[in-house]
Amino acid sequence: MAVYTHVEDDDLAAFVAKYDIGDVVALKGIAEGVENSNYLLQTDQGHYILTLYEKRVNVDDLPFFLGLLEHLAERGVDCPLPIHGRDGNTLRELAGRPAALVSFLNGICVNKPKVQHCAELGEHLARMHLASADFTLSRKNGLGQSDWRPLFDQCADHANDVQPGLRDFITAELDYLDAHWPNDLQHGIIHADLFPDNVFFVKDKLSGLIDFYFACEDALVYDLAICINAWCFERGVEFNATNARALTQSYQKIEQLPAADIAALPILCRGAALRFLLTRLYDWLNVPDGALVKPKNPLDYVERLRFHQKATSAASYGIS
Amino acid sequence: MAVYTHVEDDDLAAFVAKYDIGDVVALKGIAEGVENSNYLLQTDQGHYILTLYEKRVNVDDLPFFLGLLEHLAERGVDCPLPIHGRDGNTLRELAGRPAALVSFLNGICVNKPKVQHCAELGEHLARMHLASADFTLSRKNGLGQSDWRPLFDQCADHANDVQPGLRDFITAELDYLDAHWPNDLQHGIIHADLFPDNVFFVKDKLSGLIDFYFACEDALVYDLAICINAWCFERGVEFNATNARALTQSYQKIEQLPAADIAALPILCRGAALRFLLTRLYDWLNVPDGALVKPKNPLDYVERLRFHQKATSAASYGIS
Repeated sequence: MAVYTHVEDDDLAAFVAKYDIGDVVALKGIAEGVENSNYLLQTDQGHYILTLYEKRVNVDDLPFFLGLLEHLAERGVDCPLPIHGRDGNTLRELAGRPAALVSFLNGICVNKPKVQHCAELGEHLARMHLASADFTLSRKNGLGQSDWRPLFDQCADHANDVQPGLRDFITAELDYLDAHWPNDLQHGIIHADLFPDNVFFVKDKLSGLIDFYFACEDALVYDLAICINAWCFERGVEFNATNARALTQSYQKIEQLPAADIAALPILCRGAALRFLLTRLYDWLNVPDGALVKPKNPLDYVERLRFHQKATSAASYGIS
Repeated sequence: MAVYTHVEDDDLAAFVAKYDIGDVVALKGIAEGVENSNYLLQTDQGHYILTLYEKRVNVDDLPFFLGLLEHLAERGVDCPLPIHGRDGNTLRELAGRPAALVSFLNGICVNKPKVQHCAELGEHLARMHLASADFTLSRKNGLGQSDWRPLFDQCADHANDVQPGLRDFITAELDYLDAHWPNDLQHGIIHADLFPDNVFFVKDKLSGLIDFYFACEDALVYDLAICINAWCFERGVEFNATNARALTQSYQKIEQLPAADIAALPILCRGAALRFLLTRLYDWLNVPDGALVKPKNPLDYVERLRFHQKATSAASYGIS
């Protein structure tokens, strides 16, 4: 939620001249995306989002991210389309940072997702998975199941400061997931961070999926598990079964996942809850001096994880 | 440079329904204005800036600010026009804060003002002064000459920590200004903070004056002195006489200030430099915990003040 790198007017003019997008009308730094600096660029031909990639993004991953967006947008997925310069490139430098220009998407985020939003999300998530099937680049999930224990090792000593007993609770869950995590599910490119603030709607119709900077190869149904965690709990903790049913069933209408993958939903939901519990716990315990962003409370994910631990089958999520 | 208050989609829909501006297409929190939360609101009818007034703004001043903008915009000044709701009001509440909607202005800020920008600025500043002549509301300058000593009293003890000898330097200047400050200059409504980041240009033509939240009644020529400080120094310290000449002469072409007011430019420039030196010094010494904005270095204004101390007449600023 910040603009880390300032773009000077002369540098902007030189940058924009490399594209066939008309003349600059306005440029506004926008509070969108935690990792990068984002600007809304208006020209006399249209609106664009200008992103300057900050240090937390691995530059080597950028061709994957930009290539994926272009691949998906060309196949009708409502996501930002990278704009090619006159030289054919989508990635160049601005103000000393790697920078790219993408199309602007209409829509606003919903703060309290309703059933129609979850139905839209399920359908678009499935369409995105189908559209990425023939994308040729790949990227390892840097926060996959095997990364959770090393991540916890970095904050285990202070976990009980956040909630008494949290260290043992997480350790037991890591042990359970190590023993039971399924490794034979249908893989593909997943978004891996499809929270409500990464999805735009216009009048209850989904108009855009954004912020693909965690996208990677992993089990497709794990993306659905992340969405269940992100979209189907009221006030952070109370499970909304109607939302979950709308999400999973509308997904299945577009892409029928194998029965074994659907059956794995309870453990995948546990894994997804633990993944966000761990990254939030790490951020909670490691707030940098002068931080711009207040860390999110990790304990919401303890409650979600407890819910998933009691789910006996995928039927708990409205599907079987 | 921050969005302090988050606007939820339901609250936004209820707010926008009070205006005849069409349906919401997009809302982006923008990094503009230090004091308030600003959003760029796009509807199917146009673009608007939505401002939520944060705690540093005195709510009692809002009718003055909004009334002034409307008064100026109606008289052809390129400034934001407050939008009236269906109930006739321009000020209402959103997300627990006073909020207003104004028109969107095209243009971007210049980082290194050139002579054509200063000429444009002088002309538009004079037009703004003329247009405000029949505005009936008034507001005292909360950072006028009589306020500088009490402000310095709050940071004098630590001034020498910033630069050895700074305490005596400022005290001597306060004494000089107390003895020589002119009180018989032509008064009117001034912007009082017309720095390059508050002025938009489209292809070197001035397209907008924004951020009127320091506007107040004071000497008109003092606004020109502020602009000289803000627009006519290279790399913060080297006086650009060509820029100053363009600024002052293009102002005079539109509004001929009395000879005594022009003659007072050197001392007014001293005062303007001291005013920004003092507020920057105060902010430098009082950075709040978790501050979002890095304070600006006050010492640039020591250099500018030293330049003005040596200016023997208004001819130093390209006018007489």
